Amino acid sequence: MGKRILIVGGVAGGASVAARVRRIDGDAEVIMFDKGPHVSFSNCSLPYHLSGIVENSADLVLMSPEKFKKQYDIEARVNSEVVHINRDSKKIAIKNLITGEQYEESYDKLVLSPGASPILPRNIAGIDSQHVFTVRNVVDIEKLNGYIVENDIQDVAVVGGGFIGVEVAENLRLAGKNVSLIEAQNQIMAPFDFDMAQILHKEMMDNGINLILDDGVQAIADDAIELQSGRKIAAQAVVMSIGVTPETSLARDAGIEIGVTGAIKVDHNYLTNDKNIYAVGDAIEVYSQLTHKPTKLALAGPAQRQARAAADHMYGMPHNYKGVIGSSVVQVFELGAASTGLNEKTAKAADISCDFVYIIANDKVGLMPDSNPMHFKLIYEYPTGKILGAQAIGKGNVDKRIDVIAAMITMGGTLEDLKELELCYAPLFGTAKDVVNYAALVGLNLLYGRFQQVPVTKVRELVEKGAYIVDVRETGEFARGHLVNAVNIPLSELRDRFDEIPKDQPVYLHCRSSQRSYNAVMALQNAGYANVVNISGSFLGICLYEYVQDCTTGREKIVTAYNFK
Amino acid sequence: MGKRILIVGGVAGGASVAARVRRIDGDAEVIMFDKGPHVSFSNCSLPYHLSGIVENSADLVLMSPEKFKKQYDIEARVNSEVVHINRDSKKIAIKNLITGEQYEESYDKLVLSPGASPILPRNIAGIDSQHVFTVRNVVDIEKLNGYIVENDIQDVAVVGGGFIGVEVAENLRLAGKNVSLIEAQNQIMAPFDFDMAQILHKEMMDNGINLILDDGVQAIADDAIELQSGRKIAAQAVVMSIGVTPETSLARDAGIEIGVTGAIKVDHNYLTNDKNIYAVGDAIEVYSQLTHKPTKLALAGPAQRQARAAADHMYGMPHNYKGVIGSSVVQVFELGAASTGLNEKTAKAADISCDFVYIIANDKVGLMPDSNPMHFKLIYEYPTGKILGAQAIGKGNVDKRIDVIAAMITMGGTLEDLKELELCYAPLFGTAKDVVNYAALVGLNLLYGRFQQVPVTKVRELVEKGAYIVDVRETGEFARGHLVNAVNIPLSELRDRFDEIPKDQPVYLHCRSSQRSYNAVMALQNAGYANVVNISGSFLGICLYEYVQDCTTGREKIVTAYNFK
Repeated sequence: MGKRILIVGGVAGGASVAARVRRIDGDAEVIMFDKGPHVSFSNCSLPYHLSGIVENSADLVLMSPEKFKKQYDIEARVNSEVVHINRDSKKIAIKNLITGEQYEESYDKLVLSPGASPILPRNIAGIDSQHVFTVRNVVDIEKLNGYIVENDIQDVAVVGGGFIGVEVAENLRLAGKNVSLIEAQNQIMAPFDFDMAQILHKEMMDNGINLILDDGVQAIADDAIELQSGRKIAAQAVVMSIGVTPETSLARDAGIEIGVTGAIKVDHNYLTNDKNIYAVGDAIEVYSQLTHKPTKLALAGPAQRQARAAADHMYGMPHNYKGVIGSSVVQVFELGAASTGLNEKTAKAADISCDFVYIIANDKVGLMPDSNPMHFKLIYEYPTGKILGAQAIGKGNVDKRIDVIAAMITMGGTLEDLKELELCYAPLFGTAKDVVNYAALVGLNLLYGRFQQVPVTKVRELVEKGAYIVDVRETGEFARGHLVNAVNIPLSELRDRFDEIPKDQPVYLHCRSSQRSYNAVMALQNAGYANVVNISGSFLGICLYEYVQDCTTGREKIVTAYNFK
Repeated sequence: MGKRILIVGGVAGGASVAARVRRIDGDAEVIMFDKGPHVSFSNCSLPYHLSGIVENSADLVLMSPEKFKKQYDIEARVNSEVVHINRDSKKIAIKNLITGEQYEESYDKLVLSPGASPILPRNIAGIDSQHVFTVRNVVDIEKLNGYIVENDIQDVAVVGGGFIGVEVAENLRLAGKNVSLIEAQNQIMAPFDFDMAQILHKEMMDNGINLILDDGVQAIADDAIELQSGRKIAAQAVVMSIGVTPETSLARDAGIEIGVTGAIKVDHNYLTNDKNIYAVGDAIEVYSQLTHKPTKLALAGPAQRQARAAADHMYGMPHNYKGVIGSSVVQVFELGAASTGLNEKTAKAADISCDFVYIIANDKVGLMPDSNPMHFKLIYEYPTGKILGAQAIGKGNVDKRIDVIAAMITMGGTLEDLKELELCYAPLFGTAKDVVNYAALVGLNLLYGRFQQVPVTKVRELVEKGAYIVDVRETGEFARGHLVNAVNIPLSELRDRFDEIPKDQPVYLHCRSSQRSYNAVMALQNAGYANVVNISGSFLGICLYEYVQDCTTGREKIVTAYNFK
């Protein structure tokens, strides 16, 4: 008789443990239990049913219990809730949610993969209304979509601007709905810094999303949401996506240790404090290789790796655990937005000394069709130059750049390493000096003190205090929109016009994307100017940042005309 | 007075040295000399003028001498050939190709960036005809395109299936021409192994290119090419792209040392044997960090990095030289084809002990629009598991996967590292277990001796000798095309049909893409079968390989019907 391995929960964590165990051991008895009717579905594809990109919700289900049985000799019991673990007798109690019947099964090894459930704050009036939805599984998305279609709902409010909120909002908008996205923080998409998030805010607004920041939900009525500000938002359907919380009650009741983050605590083999019980997926606490602290990470890739490592450990195979960095990507209408590692906020919160580069570079050779600017922010440790994280937003291959950075972080790479990286280049795919090489070069220039920079977020302050700002774009570009009070001295005339530029005060420079202004900075420094500062992100960055702030706060403009080209 | 820096040749190497020097040193006198009328143009974009993707050839020119002067205070002298170097007096002799005038300029530092010129074998009759072209610069591509347009040429022969040959052939085909691509070797695109090259061959043929392999040019007549086989190919225009040779005559005449590869020898600061003369770009010899041998690498990215390092060295700034790995990508109609590091051929030629993984995996979640199979081959050192190289071909983001591998190679990564890599995932961008993670997992299973594989290139031999081959796809899939003599036992029935499978001989397995057959291999091994072998690449790989071989050699079929889905 083989081992008896019971698994609580399917999808990326549980189903991957089951499949891996079967490949290692033909004799093991493997049984998966899931509360819902499906044991294997494409979690991350759920929102795409709302727009019809995934037309048929049945396609979201990847493997049926029958197929698990036939292909892998794995038993999958659906509509089966595991309600109790008896660690002493090594038995679990299961409730059949269809028949109500309860029974027990014994295990040699138990794997917990219960996932995380959407947070529904009890203090919001109306939170239990039938038109309030969450999105966790196929049943949820079918209910939400069914409700919208059957009732011909036009106004939908999505509460919470994380991955699920953004994807749900986008797909509902693609389906032609009036969508409000309500976020209590001052930005959506926490993996991105505030400056980078503005690009996403603009894309949301440009695509007709009613974006509401810095405001929370007070109460939910039948056809409107009342916000904490008192504002009312029309909504005949509400999707709550403010976050998830690890499902720990089963583990907690059995005396399984819970970590400081509130998720199940595991060791580097994904063993809990019970040597016969493993835990994987969104319910567990993982270790950040960057902050050296426990953290939570609800992503499919890590869950699969955890599952494999847990299965391997049952059979004595070792696992080289490095800790997580957290890489993710999301599509926001025409933009891709990807990130990995730490951002400026999380690095500072972890008290890690860091600096950053923000560049806007062509994603491919400008002559090629669909060449577009890519916004790229690179965070590195100061003074070591060790790469800590990056964020990329643009129409081009943001995931490519972020995956390269993820590889560099994992391998302990520095700016020097990144600068030398030989990436593949052809005009249709990138530029000879790729965005990531270029960011490393700028970072090294900063690290070695070759020039100074100020971020776009500080430009308003500079303008208000009357700083000397030189716009080195050509006069025609300047005429199409510029900072109020900026002086226009094109790079092509700079060397002949040094005498117009004061030496007794800081000189701030920008062009369109920072390349010309960087050359101007170096020229001024070489000409003896002591205090020259490049505005990182340059006019493209300033425009974006200021435009979004103007839209969301209604404040006075400091750019004469927006010019995003 | 600043340094006087003279540069022979512009584009990626020379122009980058000039710009970097200017940023470091406002006082340096910088003069670039170029034989041609352009000092800065998008080399790699040249072929795209033939299809009209770059409609206006003037757009290929990036910076005019006037702009170099105004923006960077760099003098660019075009139509100016440097004909002699006097190392003792530190002077060069320049010939003005317009006026015929010859004069001298003195230097403190001289940079050679003469590039490489297309090879034109003198022994081919007709090689000097006016309808024989090469593609090196803007003038060349204007001449070629002009000739085709003015004479309404319909039949063009492209000789040589490297990057330029393939891109020229594709762009001419996109322009509606009848294009023959003639390659003397048995495959195009040397960075790819023979098995991977078949995918490119099929794409060429599917798009109407007359692909001729294993045949060379004997003679060029006015409207046809005669091949060494005696075959005649209609061609009223011929593009020679069989390779390039470093331009070394100027250096050689001046006693600059030439390396074993025939290119200019430089140290790790790109200094030649003369401490006042640097050399960069396609004319120099570089060091392979993988074979630990000198090599040549005619690519734009490395040229730019060499340029920066040389300029930095002039000003005492150090450069961390790691050696090259060689990363590249090319578009072949609907397919991208990228590679980095060593392939099976080059690793074996360098006597490096290696093994490989060949997988065919979805580039994104199957439910999403434009999800396609990606062919991926990973080469690793045996027995260390160190990653040596990779090749990716498909409609999806091949460059992303190869850039990740390039980063891993540069950082000394192994299969274990690659397996754990946290890449960003969303259904529109990839799969939770990305192609590269998946390849690492397969590689580790091989490395640890968990299963055996045989490549698609050996399947014919297996079929011919009557090997026992099990196709574990479902019966419906089998019916649409299969190997002759293969036994169909679907994975879903395998565990009930073990007794049909002999234990006394090797059992070879395949499915569509290798995932099911891998599970079948493990199931058989767990059931006590001692000699079970997975066919790497599986039916998709077999189909492709055999189809192309059948087309090019006309041999007997071993697949009942091709099924590339």
